[in-house]
Amino acid sequence: MPLWNIYHPEGTFEDNASKEALSKDITSFYHDGGAALPKFYVIVNFIKLPQNDMYIGGRPNTGTPFIRLKIDHIAVTLPNEDEVYNSVTARIEEALKPHIADKGYDWEFHVDETERRLWRVQGFNPPPHKSEGEKLWRELNKAVPWEEESK
Amino acid sequence: MPLWNIYHPEGTFEDNASKEALSKDITSFYHDGGAALPKFYVIVNFIKLPQNDMYIGGRPNTGTPFIRLKIDHIAVTLPNEDEVYNSVTARIEEALKPHIADKGYDWEFHVDETERRLWRVQGFNPPPHKSEGEKLWRELNKAVPWEEESK
Amino acid sequence: MPLWNIYHPEGTFEDNASKEALSKDITSFYHDGGAALPKFYVIVNFIKLPQNDMYIGGRPNTGTPFIRLKIDHIAVTLPNEDEVYNSVTARIEEALKPHIADKGYDWEFHVDETERRLWRVQGFNPPPHKSEGEKLWRELNKAVPWEEESK
Repeated sequence: MPLWNIYHPEGTFEDNASKEALSKDITSFYHDGGAALPKFYVIVNFIKLPQNDMYIGGRPNTGTPFIRLKIDHIAVTLPNEDEVYNSVTARIEEALKPHIADKGYDWEFHVDETERRLWRVQGFNPPPHKSEGEKLWRELNKAVPWEEESK
Repeated sequence: MPLWNIYHPEGTFEDNASKEALSKDITSFYHDGGAALPKFYVIVNFIKLPQNDMYIGGRPNTGTPFIRLKIDHIAVTLPNEDEVYNSVTARIEEALKPHIADKGYDWEFHVDETERRLWRVQGFNPPPHKSEGEKLWRELNKAVPWEEESK
Repeated sequence: MPLWNIYHPEGTFEDNASKEALSKDITSFYHDGGAALPKFYVIVNFIKLPQNDMYIGGRPNTGTPFIRLKIDHIAVTLPNEDEVYNSVTARIEEALKPHIADKGYDWEFHVDETERRLWRVQGFNPPPHKSEGEKLWRELNKAVPWEEESK
């Protein structure tokens, strides 16, 4: 469900190990944290751009590398509360820190929440959040037929 | 209006014919189906990524090819009803099937709906959905001046 | 805050000067206009695609170059009024004109508005729009600690 598009300049995330490490920490945030989502819900795209194809305030991304992350949340819509938003974005920062801030990069992210019912995985309507079906998908780490539960 | 971004790994959709075929079926869904939108509203971007630039649950996209589709809907906001959402996503699956599932790929898509009034085509505010103006654009398959209708 | 993804075919925006010029005019719209945002909020990504990786109504982008712009607005949510939407999109057109229409390209854009509280810059929750903190960020053109103001 979460779709992360990470726009980064050439010269950053060039080795596969650095990309895998960040994607694992992002996955852990959704899988091991309170959301407890299936791992395979977490998609991370590294979209590498030449330095002169990214502009910050009208200037090319040729100085301190700037990383721009755009995150779509689909499976879970957060309650509309300042504290929840603050807590979630703080934990995203924690996941990013060793991979971005600690390397001396600049960065920015934002999250968009979209309609869960306009989402399909492998042809399935995903089971409701926190349902037995979702637990099964999480355990198997794949999409399988699930019983529609009484709600 | 619909903007489709298709993130796919190297080794998939490498030939132009496969991309054109999928984009034609997507176009047909919007143009020949009940929405009856102008063909030129349908934009499909194939964004090819190296296998090690896409991660699913922390693992690189090096196994069964995984295709991630992000769809923006702008011209039409669906009524907020389970049955409508289910019907639309089912028909999107039908359009995708021969191009993705039948090739043995894995896939996931989600749709975001955005504000119609923050959209312009070729400098024009597009005519209202199902209006005479939209029919004209559909017939000509291009954006042309249209009369503001009484609403 | 505004994130602009500009999907353009090979053969357009090939020289750095053309990209910098467009990104500067976009930045000016947000910085010098009524929004008066910090320059560094404005991120513009040029995502170049082979002509046969973009489809318009089922046809590849091999004729008149077609430029597709997707804009995310985060810092400011517009009041839900036809006149405001019309004014903002008209001014975006003005910024684009010399870079796209005047070159004979075709184009389309749409704006998505997302939740401000799910946005962080350089680890900070950005200061409220039109606050003293935002003025400080604008003046310095960088993210710095700011005092939480009484609201």
